[in-house]
Amino acid sequence: MKLNSTNVRISIIPYTAAARPELTQDKTVVVIDVLRATSVMVHALFNGAREIIPAVSPEEALQKSLLYHTNEVLLAGEQQTVKIEGFHLGNSPLEYTPEKVAGKTIIISTTNGTKALNSCLNAKQVIIGSFLNAGAVVNKLTDKEDVVLFCSGTNNNFSLDDGLCAALITDGIVKQKKDAVELSDFAQLLLNAYHYNDNITKSLQKCYHLNLLKQRGFENDVTFCLQNNIFNIVPQMNLINKSIN
Amino acid sequence: MKLNSTNVRISIIPYTAAARPELTQDKTVVVIDVLRATSVMVHALFNGAREIIPAVSPEEALQKSLLYHTNEVLLAGEQQTVKIEGFHLGNSPLEYTPEKVAGKTIIISTTNGTKALNSCLNAKQVIIGSFLNAGAVVNKLTDKEDVVLFCSGTNNNFSLDDGLCAALITDGIVKQKKDAVELSDFAQLLLNAYHYNDNITKSLQKCYHLNLLKQRGFENDVTFCLQNNIFNIVPQMNLINKSIN
Repeated sequence: MKLNSTNVRISIIPYTAAARPELTQDKTVVVIDVLRATSVMVHALFNGAREIIPAVSPEEALQKSLLYHTNEVLLAGEQQTVKIEGFHLGNSPLEYTPEKVAGKTIIISTTNGTKALNSCLNAKQVIIGSFLNAGAVVNKLTDKEDVVLFCSGTNNNFSLDDGLCAALITDGIVKQKKDAVELSDFAQLLLNAYHYNDNITKSLQKCYHLNLLKQRGFENDVTFCLQNNIFNIVPQMNLINKSIN
Repeated sequence: MKLNSTNVRISIIPYTAAARPELTQDKTVVVIDVLRATSVMVHALFNGAREIIPAVSPEEALQKSLLYHTNEVLLAGEQQTVKIEGFHLGNSPLEYTPEKVAGKTIIISTTNGTKALNSCLNAKQVIIGSFLNAGAVVNKLTDKEDVVLFCSGTNNNFSLDDGLCAALITDGIVKQKKDAVELSDFAQLLLNAYHYNDNITKSLQKCYHLNLLKQRGFENDVTFCLQNNIFNIVPQMNLINKSIN
């Protein structure tokens, strides 16, 4: 045991369908959905959104919006990459400009990310992670004991973009804490893969979900979401009223 | 499309608790439990065992054994790394000598591996993989279309030993088939981690389950199980009577 140095234990949830309550219970959980839910959240809050409320379905998003005045709330999200009909915003981070989002409550439903958020409500703390704010997230984690990096994944499978973001965050913690880090087997795997090639764009050339988004015309979103450390904010989930700010 | 060359699609199940019926349905599934169930099976069959019957619990193993004459059957397995009381054999591959196992039916229950086997009975074909027979397994897979490498894991989590065995098999297929391979995001991750360090023993220095076995006195088992390509056999599950031979 070292004085003045907490050991950080890092474990990974590879995708939402693999989450189980005991994996998140009382832990510091970082939810990662690089393409694109958590990148959207980070960008929206950086641009002045008041709060973000995740919903598990478009229907739940609509229902929750009824609690707000129409001029203070925006409905947002996607289903299978496509904007939900009648909603104000889709799942493209570039849509979330200061002009549109400043001061607003955003209620968002996405295919993977918001489901991940709703499956870790038993955590001690839930943090929103992405490449955009990875450095700030690392700094928030170095004094925690039990960190779970929750990769949202795509359609109940592992997605390499989320995995490499978790690897980058793991690498950042290891660089700061040196030997005072304990990595689960999965965290070791991620770190080794990241060390093999730390050029994220190149490593993701064959990533299924990234290529699907490109095919559907979201290439600018992909480029935006793969930027590293451009926003120095760490959104957190308020576990009582379940909003993110 | 190339003539005379089937594209092999490779996907991964990271651990038993993450298996879902749709992931194995009609696929060629390779079940991998390096430490130690599938290594035991490969060694036992190489040494002349007649067949191996996986059971999901010691109770089921006992029940199944009643169908055999006592001189033709051996009860085997472990619970949390320890040999089951009253059973003939534990889960140490080195116990499975020709003298003990030749001609015998072995009914085995282990913490992870036999549960993995029982969760892919809807597959087209189930193959037993380990480092010991990795090369032979690769040769069996190069003409398949949909290959699932099923890492059993440890106590419902990912275990790096199984992952790196899956990586080695993936690497072998890629080397033979070149561009005629499609890798899932997880398979890409495994391959990158393996390319970062293909010294398996070194990569597994901090593997949780490997170190647990060493602490409990099974260091010789670990050394045995990490040997690469020493047996040129590919055990398969008979999906009708659920035995492996």
